[in-house]
Amino acid sequence: MFRMERRERADAARNRQAILRAAEELLRRYPPEEVSVERVAAAAGVGKGTVFHRFGSRTGLMLELMTERARELEQAVTEGPPPLGPGAAPVERLVAFFAAVAELAARNGNLMAAHEHAVVTRKSHAEQPRQANPIYVFWHRHASRLIAEGRPDVDAEQIAHMLLGTLHMEPIASRLRAGEHERLAAAFADLVHGLLGTPKG
Amino acid sequence: MFRMERRERADAARNRQAILRAAEELLRRYPPEEVSVERVAAAAGVGKGTVFHRFGSRTGLMLELMTERARELEQAVTEGPPPLGPGAAPVERLVAFFAAVAELAARNGNLMAAHEHAVVTRKSHAEQPRQANPIYVFWHRHASRLIAEGRPDVDAEQIAHMLLGTLHMEPIASRLRAGEHERLAAAFADLVHGLLGTPKG
Repeated sequence: MFRMERRERADAARNRQAILRAAEELLRRYPPEEVSVERVAAAAGVGKGTVFHRFGSRTGLMLELMTERARELEQAVTEGPPPLGPGAAPVERLVAFFAAVAELAARNGNLMAAHEHAVVTRKSHAEQPRQANPIYVFWHRHASRLIAEGRPDVDAEQIAHMLLGTLHMEPIASRLRAGEHERLAAAFADLVHGLLGTPKG
Repeated sequence: MFRMERRERADAARNRQAILRAAEELLRRYPPEEVSVERVAAAAGVGKGTVFHRFGSRTGLMLELMTERARELEQAVTEGPPPLGPGAAPVERLVAFFAAVAELAARNGNLMAAHEHAVVTRKSHAEQPRQANPIYVFWHRHASRLIAEGRPDVDAEQIAHMLLGTLHMEPIASRLRAGEHERLAAAFADLVHGLLGTPKG
C-alpha cells in the first residue's frame, strides 16, 4: 500500500514535469493562442483531465511555467556564476540581469500579458499588485541594490521601478512578445552603463 | 443680426475658457472624483447644460484640458526659451523636457489614468494606441531626437519609449497622481545625465 502511494506520487511528479516541458516546447514553436490544454496534454502523453487536475486551468499551467522560470533566474542571481550571480561589478551584474529579464519576458510574452491584464483589472480597486507580486519584489530588490551599490547618490529604488516597468509598456511589451529582447537588453545596457559607468576591464 | 451672432460666439468662447479655468482650479484643490460637472459649472458661473454643450461630457472636458496643457508644452519645446526650448545642449533640454512631462503628468494624473484605461481596453484588440496618440507621438519624437543628438551610438527610439513609458507604470503612476513628480524628474535627470554626460558649464 505504502509502495503504491509512493509510486502514485512519483507518477504525479513525472506527469507534472511532462506537462510543463510539453507546454514550454509548444510555446517555443507556436503562438500562445494555439497552445491549448488539449494540445499540451497530447504532447505530454497524458489525458486532458490530468492537466486540469495538476494545474487547475490553462492559466494555472501558464503561471506555474512563469513561476518556475522566475525561480531559475532567482537562483542564478543569488548563487549562480558571475556576471548574473555574485562576483562581478554591479554594472556587469545589472546588465546581465536586465538581459535575462528581457529574455524571460520575451519567452513568456503571453504569460506577462495575462499577468498584466490581471494587474490592470485589479488596479481599478486602487491596489498596487505589481509590488505585491513576489517575482517583481525580488527583481526590484535585486536591481535596486545593485544600482545603489554602483551609484549611492541616486534614487535606486525609483530607477529600478522605472527600468523594470518598461517590460510591461507598449510598444516594448509587444516587441517582447514578438521575441525582440536583444533590442531591449541593449537599451538597458546603455542606460545602466551610462548610470554606473563602464568597469575597467 | 450679424452683431448678435458675433456676440454669441464671443460669449461661447468666454464660457469655454471660464469652464476650462474653473475645472483646472478645482483639480488643483480637490481629488478628481470630487470634481463633478455640477461643481465646475457652478465655479464657472454657467449652467450644467452649457458644460455638456461645449465639451460633450465630463471626459470630453478632461481630455480638452489635457490637450491644452500638452499643446502649451509642445509650444514651449519648439519655440520657448532654453533649456526646454531650442538653444541648450541636448542633455539639458532632455532633463527639462522630462521634468515638464513629469509635472504635467502629476497635474493631470486623473486624465492620464483615464487615458491609460482607454488604452488598455483597446489593447485587447491588438492595437498600439499609445503610439497613435498625437501627444505621445510628439513627446517620443522630441525625446528620440535629443537622445540621438547627444548619443548617436544608442537606440534612441527604444530608449525614448522606455523613459516615457515609465509615466504610466505602477508604482510610478500612483506616485505621480499623489503629486510626487520631483522624484521622477530627478531619476530622469540621473538617467539622462548618465547616458548623455553632464555638459561642461
